[in-house]
Amino acid sequence: MTEHAELDHDRRRRTGVPEVVLASGKTTGQTLALLAALRRGDPSGPALATRCPDAVLAAAPDAFPGEPVAVDPVGRTVVVGAVPVPVGDTVLLTAGTADVPVARECAATLAVLGVAAELVPDVGVAGLHRLLGHLERVRAAHVVVVVAGMDGALPSVVAGLVAAPVIGVPTSVGYGVAAGGLAATASMLATCAPGLVVVNVDNGFGAAVHAAKIERSAAGG
Amino acid sequence: MTEHAELDHDRRRRTGVPEVVLASGKTTGQTLALLAALRRGDPSGPALATRCPDAVLAAAPDAFPGEPVAVDPVGRTVVVGAVPVPVGDTVLLTAGTADVPVARECAATLAVLGVAAELVPDVGVAGLHRLLGHLERVRAAHVVVVVAGMDGALPSVVAGLVAAPVIGVPTSVGYGVAAGGLAATASMLATCAPGLVVVNVDNGFGAAVHAAKIERSAAGG
Amino acid sequence: MTEHAELDHDRRRRTGVPEVVLASGKTTGQTLALLAALRRGDPSGPALATRCPDAVLAAAPDAFPGEPVAVDPVGRTVVVGAVPVPVGDTVLLTAGTADVPVARECAATLAVLGVAAELVPDVGVAGLHRLLGHLERVRAAHVVVVVAGMDGALPSVVAGLVAAPVIGVPTSVGYGVAAGGLAATASMLATCAPGLVVVNVDNGFGAAVHAAKIERSAAGG
Amino acid sequence: MTEHAELDHDRRRRTGVPEVVLASGKTTGQTLALLAALRRGDPSGPALATRCPDAVLAAAPDAFPGEPVAVDPVGRTVVVGAVPVPVGDTVLLTAGTADVPVARECAATLAVLGVAAELVPDVGVAGLHRLLGHLERVRAAHVVVVVAGMDGALPSVVAGLVAAPVIGVPTSVGYGVAAGGLAATASMLATCAPGLVVVNVDNGFGAAVHAAKIERSAAGG
Amino acid sequence: MTEHAELDHDRRRRTGVPEVVLASGKTTGQTLALLAALRRGDPSGPALATRCPDAVLAAAPDAFPGEPVAVDPVGRTVVVGAVPVPVGDTVLLTAGTADVPVARECAATLAVLGVAAELVPDVGVAGLHRLLGHLERVRAAHVVVVVAGMDGALPSVVAGLVAAPVIGVPTSVGYGVAAGGLAATASMLATCAPGLVVVNVDNGFGAAVHAAKIERSAAGG
Amino acid sequence: MTEHAELDHDRRRRTGVPEVVLASGKTTGQTLALLAALRRGDPSGPALATRCPDAVLAAAPDAFPGEPVAVDPVGRTVVVGAVPVPVGDTVLLTAGTADVPVARECAATLAVLGVAAELVPDVGVAGLHRLLGHLERVRAAHVVVVVAGMDGALPSVVAGLVAAPVIGVPTSVGYGVAAGGLAATASMLATCAPGLVVVNVDNGFGAAVHAAKIERSAAGG
Amino acid sequence: MTEHAELDHDRRRRTGVPEVVLASGKTTGQTLALLAALRRGDPSGPALATRCPDAVLAAAPDAFPGEPVAVDPVGRTVVVGAVPVPVGDTVLLTAGTADVPVARECAATLAVLGVAAELVPDVGVAGLHRLLGHLERVRAAHVVVVVAGMDGALPSVVAGLVAAPVIGVPTSVGYGVAAGGLAATASMLATCAPGLVVVNVDNGFGAAVHAAKIERSAAGG
Amino acid sequence: MTEHAELDHDRRRRTGVPEVVLASGKTTGQTLALLAALRRGDPSGPALATRCPDAVLAAAPDAFPGEPVAVDPVGRTVVVGAVPVPVGDTVLLTAGTADVPVARECAATLAVLGVAAELVPDVGVAGLHRLLGHLERVRAAHVVVVVAGMDGALPSVVAGLVAAPVIGVPTSVGYGVAAGGLAATASMLATCAPGLVVVNVDNGFGAAVHAAKIERSAAGG
Repeated sequence: MTEHAELDHDRRRRTGVPEVVLASGKTTGQTLALLAALRRGDPSGPALATRCPDAVLAAAPDAFPGEPVAVDPVGRTVVVGAVPVPVGDTVLLTAGTADVPVARECAATLAVLGVAAELVPDVGVAGLHRLLGHLERVRAAHVVVVVAGMDGALPSVVAGLVAAPVIGVPTSVGYGVAAGGLAATASMLATCAPGLVVVNVDNGFGAAVHAAKIERSAAGG
Repeated sequence: MTEHAELDHDRRRRTGVPEVVLASGKTTGQTLALLAALRRGDPSGPALATRCPDAVLAAAPDAFPGEPVAVDPVGRTVVVGAVPVPVGDTVLLTAGTADVPVARECAATLAVLGVAAELVPDVGVAGLHRLLGHLERVRAAHVVVVVAGMDGALPSVVAGLVAAPVIGVPTSVGYGVAAGGLAATASMLATCAPGLVVVNVDNGFGAAVHAAKIERSAAGG
Repeated sequence: MTEHAELDHDRRRRTGVPEVVLASGKTTGQTLALLAALRRGDPSGPALATRCPDAVLAAAPDAFPGEPVAVDPVGRTVVVGAVPVPVGDTVLLTAGTADVPVARECAATLAVLGVAAELVPDVGVAGLHRLLGHLERVRAAHVVVVVAGMDGALPSVVAGLVAAPVIGVPTSVGYGVAAGGLAATASMLATCAPGLVVVNVDNGFGAAVHAAKIERSAAGG
Repeated sequence: MTEHAELDHDRRRRTGVPEVVLASGKTTGQTLALLAALRRGDPSGPALATRCPDAVLAAAPDAFPGEPVAVDPVGRTVVVGAVPVPVGDTVLLTAGTADVPVARECAATLAVLGVAAELVPDVGVAGLHRLLGHLERVRAAHVVVVVAGMDGALPSVVAGLVAAPVIGVPTSVGYGVAAGGLAATASMLATCAPGLVVVNVDNGFGAAVHAAKIERSAAGG
Repeated sequence: MTEHAELDHDRRRRTGVPEVVLASGKTTGQTLALLAALRRGDPSGPALATRCPDAVLAAAPDAFPGEPVAVDPVGRTVVVGAVPVPVGDTVLLTAGTADVPVARECAATLAVLGVAAELVPDVGVAGLHRLLGHLERVRAAHVVVVVAGMDGALPSVVAGLVAAPVIGVPTSVGYGVAAGGLAATASMLATCAPGLVVVNVDNGFGAAVHAAKIERSAAGG
Repeated sequence: MTEHAELDHDRRRRTGVPEVVLASGKTTGQTLALLAALRRGDPSGPALATRCPDAVLAAAPDAFPGEPVAVDPVGRTVVVGAVPVPVGDTVLLTAGTADVPVARECAATLAVLGVAAELVPDVGVAGLHRLLGHLERVRAAHVVVVVAGMDGALPSVVAGLVAAPVIGVPTSVGYGVAAGGLAATASMLATCAPGLVVVNVDNGFGAAVHAAKIERSAAGG
Repeated sequence: MTEHAELDHDRRRRTGVPEVVLASGKTTGQTLALLAALRRGDPSGPALATRCPDAVLAAAPDAFPGEPVAVDPVGRTVVVGAVPVPVGDTVLLTAGTADVPVARECAATLAVLGVAAELVPDVGVAGLHRLLGHLERVRAAHVVVVVAGMDGALPSVVAGLVAAPVIGVPTSVGYGVAAGGLAATASMLATCAPGLVVVNVDNGFGAAVHAAKIERSAAGG
Repeated sequence: MTEHAELDHDRRRRTGVPEVVLASGKTTGQTLALLAALRRGDPSGPALATRCPDAVLAAAPDAFPGEPVAVDPVGRTVVVGAVPVPVGDTVLLTAGTADVPVARECAATLAVLGVAAELVPDVGVAGLHRLLGHLERVRAAHVVVVVAGMDGALPSVVAGLVAAPVIGVPTSVGYGVAAGGLAATASMLATCAPGLVVVNVDNGFGAAVHAAKIERSAAGG
């Protein structure tokens, strides 16, 4: 019985997005080995691991001597290798502070993909003036990623205020009917604001990939 | 086998709310007969039928000669008998025009319960300036009822802007994941705005009863 | 990348409700720091943390020397600072003893908001005489909060017995089809008792905020 | 390809319950033919059809000349042949008038099975005194069947008040989260009242069969 | 704030079923204290605790010196006091060995209620001959309780084979679409076998109470 | 904008299964035209349309002069062209008569694919002797397709009795929790009988295709 | 009670997207009047109505004399006024022919927004060569919209093959577990292909708005 | 109370499949004892335990001295006794590496049942060339088992490419809307590819049993 993994070395060429390591459910050794393999297989850019447990976050800096290693304990990402000089202008909004880890996963992915990003946390609809205070900044962005759990209302509000493409990221923040993020997901999909698009719950990585594709498109890509 | 209906003649005394006729699923004859029975049983106030089919709306004016009969074809309500002089100040907001029928059911119920109500339609979050343009008016209200389908985001936004009690009414307006109103219901229950309370989908009647109880409480009870 | 939290210092002025700390998912240090920040930012009233893990409950009394600190290990709340002199009259009912923690979260929130509350536990519908024995007391209340898991039947029964506004709080108490509280939530929303309103599962805090808004309204607020 | 229907002539002997015709989804001709076949195949008792469309109700009396034919347009049942002399004492309660058709299907089935039944409609929990006014009668019954849609709360209340076996029948009465009867079903299954058992939504027939088995058991099997 | 528990001392008289202790979610001390209180409050019968964690099972024998204490580590029940002499004849079937704990909870409850019970495990539909081999025994029973997880098919099969009342108990045994027991619950409610009734997932206690009510009814109760 | 349909002329060669017409949602003209196109595009075998409305069933015989046209008003299929000489031995079981249309769709598809099939209807688990009476025949089959709505229990019972591959087809027959067929689908997927496989609700066509692939494999591929 | 609709004349300026008329649930007169109002209120571009019933499609051409009126009976859209000269390059793929109406709604919206679009229908994953035959064309597009019901698999496949942003549109095409489009929606959100974003079921309009925002961004914003 | 387990010694003769031990939820001692009992009861073939916790995997080799014991820590299976010489040709595909454990459970079961199997991992639709690179091999197989979590798209793609029977195995791999595997299950059941059949989430064992029945049928079974 043969069982060798089918590495997708070609993904960056086909889709503009390199393979990454989803560390949850893997051992520390597996994750570090996969990061090393990606680093070797595609040296033109940094290697990214997402959803890293504490042990990976702790072990990563020493595992790649001579390489820049960026560890984000909030977003639970590890980046091995130098990131590109960022271009573009993507703004990341979060409804609450509990949504920040998902936004940080998104931000680390954007950094790996060479996109400049700014995170504006904690502007949920329960205190609308916080969002309105940042409106000029948000309206200047090329792409807006809005991360929200619980009611999932913020992306609909933002999509009604700006001309840029808006990506909604539901999160698993919340309890009761909000548990797991399905209420927020449904609210975003059912939005009354035209053009809002949605990714899976807590999928900051996927939102970053879509944002980067738009930024690349805008950059002549 | 005995089978006489158990009329709840005592409900107004116990709960401050008279019995009403839910006309959906009843014949025109049954609805008109029940309206007449309520009128006789509790002559201190008007009799209300909700969710009236076209045939009831058409037949009601002639069915109660000598009585004032108010028919609302949008809210699908029939009121037989003079309504009380309204007191209090409840504002009803809707996210879209398709939510107006539910708000009109709410308004007719408030009229029967003696509460002054103003309906401000079509102030959904996709065009936030519409809500903000009415903010002074909304902030002056005793109670705010917010009717919204699709994403169900408007009640959360409103509850973050006003000090009055806010009641969210999800509606069955929408399609796909919004069909039937469960996405809006879940979003409202999962709200990040403290103090928002929720009733069943399309239940303008229930929202009105709760609002009237608050108004009565504010009026000295 | 800027990432400063957007504190909503203005919330009490806008909505009559101060910000509170939802301690679940936060470290002890974060929760205590946020309590201190709230205390400094809004010294006109006490600071509240809900859903506190054991470590926060243990650490809180020593963390605020010279301040009154009230810790409720059942409701898992911490209140720092003196609570207002209570006014109003809100009664809290629970269906079972397992629902008491949610009612205690509600009670602590009411205390912070200056509302007098009485908790009557364990009056579920399986032993209806227990509720009926308290009926006179319940009927005298300004607002009634009914906390119930499993079948969620108690709020519908209470709403048919009293004239005051009734708020249903479903809880996650139960197993099988009741697990997570959705059966109780659906039953309350589907109530046959006019005017019952509902908050999220286990959301004693939200019920307290709505009750306090009604009490304030009744007090001329 | 052979395709002859496998009639279960033996069911009454095995389970004490004869086969019946579920008329929904069948043509009038099919239903009447099946009634005739049951009548011939098992002449020791009457033949029953449930969920009969209007056309069946209209055609049945003339289709069986020389036989007693009982048609119930509310419960939508047709009974061909003389029913047994009823024994036992089963009480059927409904929460609302809209639940009566399901209770009538139950009553017709009980009649076919030889059980004496009394229907007490419209004693839902929104007006609890109506139920309490019948308590002595309900407590005297051998078996209590409680039919309720919307919140599904009534069976839990009844099961806490009586010593007889209680069967809950959820109905599809209601709208929004109650649509289809799943909220009532879940509430009944999640009951806090020990010993309540539940059948499928609108399944008055199934409740009657279970009640009849209990009655037969009490009558000496 | 008063908060004394409302003990339902009267339950046995009203419903024939004494209060029991649901030990899950309680401390060992709380459970033992409640058992003691039940023992004192209703000395006419034994006191029962269900869903007992290991610590309660270990501590119970020494906690009631001079009393008979029966501990079942499979069904997780503790019975304090002598059980009545059993009468009646209830047979408990399980589909698999993993369903036995629920059946043992049912058996312990029946013992407390004075009903004779026999457990026949592991007769699921994947090996139908096992059930058919016990058919004579099962057909002789007054009441049949059928406990099944996964597909939930066994109760429907049994209900088509016997004349006695059949109670289906879905269990949380299974994975994937069976996880939590909802697939088994739905299959049992949707049964093609007339008269099958259903209780909540894993609710061996509830099934026992209903069975005991039937047995009592048959005994002239 | 180009918009020519991409016909999959190659499907029979790749997968052994020709394209068919799913007539539901199409006009009569569209369905007949597609049948004609399939007939022309792949003259080596007959053309099949499934889920045909009455108008298609009525129009088909005259639409293909000179061709054999087989119309099944129960299974709602139309077959144009001569079917192959059947080989193999697939037995189709249904739980009830209401499940027969799905089995007939399966049978017509098997005929088109050249598989001999026998339909044994109405052997549901509520009368188990009916199934057991056919056991010898069923055990002789190469493949067994079991069609069942409501509880979906029959396929699990059959899969425990025979050595041949068993395919479960849930149907939308039923009401309440069975409505739409999801309860039957979940029960079949959760089966305790090893090796049972499942297709979509009412998907007699898909079951036939899988059965035919097995028959072909047994016939030497 | 005031009730004037709050028209959002400002939407095109804020978000780059004009208001449109969702015709489902409106009378023909209402839809035509709203189209006329949009035409007057924002003469810089055409007015669009989506989800038009047959009566609107029939009446529209005569309702706007002197104006170009484009009616698409498949996509159920009406466009009043000249559309802009299209720029950009968006490709629309559908899995089946039944998904074409949603793609046509998308195409009409793109035309109104000034985006050039090409529709490639019927390239679902059951015949993968059809998609691969168009791969060069699809890879050349700026934006790819993939419309699929049933399994919802096509967008994931496409997102793994191209570098452009990909938008998945689930449709309500299908039956059984696919009914209503939730299976397709869930599959798309759960995609293994990085960067796929999703809109509501059947929401061709929303996908077009997002695509147009990307095209505008690429065109220099 | 008798309670001896009903072993199904006859299962291999009836269905061609021996009983196996599902180790999850059992103690190490119970699992090993059941393996020994199966070994004794049916010495004609090896005994299999699935879903083995670490402790069982560690203890198994020493528990059966003198017997061959094969332990797979990835698939979590233990096989005691010599497996048959494999015949047939079943190919197992997985979408990702995280799906491999389920495929390994399938492979171990096939080995026990005497079927030759080859595992080709990590050929998910996000990198379609990986699948296409193995197409010739896959097309040569007798049976194809496709294991996929998240979107569940791979089985539909494969079923459109090969003539052999295809069995889809959804897995619980994924998060958000994919959590638990229901999104993958629904997508597979809703497939547009004719003839795809589905088993429960993570049920590699069940897929193997069905595949082995097909292989046996092809072998003249």
